[in-house]
Amino acid sequence: MRIPFEVMVDQFEKVLLLRGMDGPSAKLSATLIAETSLEGVYTHGANRFCFYVKNIDDKVVDINARASRVDTFGALERWDGKQGPGNLNAHICMKRAIELAKGHTIGCVALANNSHWMRPGTYGLMAAEEDCIGILWTNTLPLMPAWGGKDAKVGNNPIVFAIPSKDGPVLVDAAMSQFSYGKMETYKREGRPLPFDGGFDKEGNPSRDAAAIMESRRPMPMGFWKGTSLSLALDLIAAALSGGMTTQAIGKEEVEKGVSQIFIAISLSNLPDREAIEEKIAASLADLKSSIPMDPSNPVRFPGEKRKTLREENLRDGIPMDERVWEKILEL
Amino acid sequence: MRIPFEVMVDQFEKVLLLRGMDGPSAKLSATLIAETSLEGVYTHGANRFCFYVKNIDDKVVDINARASRVDTFGALERWDGKQGPGNLNAHICMKRAIELAKGHTIGCVALANNSHWMRPGTYGLMAAEEDCIGILWTNTLPLMPAWGGKDAKVGNNPIVFAIPSKDGPVLVDAAMSQFSYGKMETYKREGRPLPFDGGFDKEGNPSRDAAAIMESRRPMPMGFWKGTSLSLALDLIAAALSGGMTTQAIGKEEVEKGVSQIFIAISLSNLPDREAIEEKIAASLADLKSSIPMDPSNPVRFPGEKRKTLREENLRDGIPMDERVWEKILEL
Repeated sequence: MRIPFEVMVDQFEKVLLLRGMDGPSAKLSATLIAETSLEGVYTHGANRFCFYVKNIDDKVVDINARASRVDTFGALERWDGKQGPGNLNAHICMKRAIELAKGHTIGCVALANNSHWMRPGTYGLMAAEEDCIGILWTNTLPLMPAWGGKDAKVGNNPIVFAIPSKDGPVLVDAAMSQFSYGKMETYKREGRPLPFDGGFDKEGNPSRDAAAIMESRRPMPMGFWKGTSLSLALDLIAAALSGGMTTQAIGKEEVEKGVSQIFIAISLSNLPDREAIEEKIAASLADLKSSIPMDPSNPVRFPGEKRKTLREENLRDGIPMDERVWEKILEL
Repeated sequence: MRIPFEVMVDQFEKVLLLRGMDGPSAKLSATLIAETSLEGVYTHGANRFCFYVKNIDDKVVDINARASRVDTFGALERWDGKQGPGNLNAHICMKRAIELAKGHTIGCVALANNSHWMRPGTYGLMAAEEDCIGILWTNTLPLMPAWGGKDAKVGNNPIVFAIPSKDGPVLVDAAMSQFSYGKMETYKREGRPLPFDGGFDKEGNPSRDAAAIMESRRPMPMGFWKGTSLSLALDLIAAALSGGMTTQAIGKEEVEKGVSQIFIAISLSNLPDREAIEEKIAASLADLKSSIPMDPSNPVRFPGEKRKTLREENLRDGIPMDERVWEKILEL
């Protein structure tokens, strides 16, 4: 089935208002989550709305708490998320990082005690819309073993790079595991094997079986040893700068809560050669797209390129939705 | 054979002085390159000294040029490397980023027109020594295809994260290809297969044969599609902020020259809870090291952990060196 964008926003808004969220926040949160599905990131939008509401109902998320500034250190600020709604807190902090970037050209907000921020790319797009480069990441609870280890010790710590361009933002949104749990969930549901080894089964054998990997909690890091190392670095930086928890500390909680996040914005408008920058980005993207494809029916695209088309399609035809999930959302 | 550290520094210094480099620069450059081998990063130290000197002899590198500031934008500065020696320019810019970080907590130097900076990790360690987090990267000439493409379009664009810790810096130094050309060169020389598919051969088949991959110029990106996307983002950011060349533009040159680089430093000393930060980093590293290892004889280590031991060993016993390479260096 397909749900019109406005219907989805209205339904999410209604559910959040019912739980006591203030009007503007409910509208914003509903819009951010529906837009995620609208742009084709189905794993992190409407399909996670029940999880979002469950965390509110379970008091893991404090529906009325919002991030506030703790301290300022030049171009870097520390904020405390107070376990409020993760997407609203992240929205506040990215907005502030952009303001800092307008003043200092580079600005950084380090946020402690946040809840799950839903789709990471959302905040990268905010930066790009304000003519800023956005670099942001989060830590998570321990989700995968370090390379060479068996037990989950590091997060999958997604990182986002967003770069404005006249063809639409270049948007890289990558977890440090080769496949996100959301993606593995999809393969599991559809009973398909992963296209590459995505982890280890309980016996320690490399595997393409999403269900077996989710059971063993041993997904493969992106780039093997490289993914683990990058994940650790992102975690330590986020916790150090925000004054918040590391993945190791989050792992002691019963559920994931109190994650640490970094929002860096760099203002391109502050630079004198803005037009030359535009041209060199366009030339790079055109060159990339001129790649000789391995599969002639599948031309090389830049990351984020499909977003606009998907958005238009889903605005026109409605957002593809699993009927059972939508039924659940209507009952919330 | 093993060469004492001091002998190596003296030899490099002599060669550079002979070519007209000023005394302090020759000393610094020689030390940086010898220290790379001292710390066990054999691919990027003494083994590349002939390449470093060849670029000077071929006038690809201007031995007398040094990076200078072009413009200041708050906490971000633009510098021009003028095609001077890459390691000396990077040293100047990292030093400046650290100064900016001491003032603004976060500081960024964007460097255009640099030459190959040799070992990326060198500048991360500089940041850590000044109690800063270091985040730095470079673009390169096109070295690998975009995911789904056949012809080399993106750089391998190494990125470094360095984080001070009481157990020695956490140091992540990762190219966006699964295996660096330097590493593949080693496997090729030793006639060993790569431990994982490292690229495609000329027929487009996934391959562990380093020689075949180097010939096809089709190394595998780290994390498949993720490595290509990250590489593109790092490239565009470096070129945009520095005002320098993208990978695409560098590809038009006959040899790699005029790369764009980013040096970000974040001062931990500026934060009020420095001690708590130390403790949470130590707890994370201890937890990581307590992983149940897949191979009991091979405990999990944090990135950068082996550095100190290797350094001590090589200081005591001399630096392992291929006799033929050392002979060539003596003839320079």
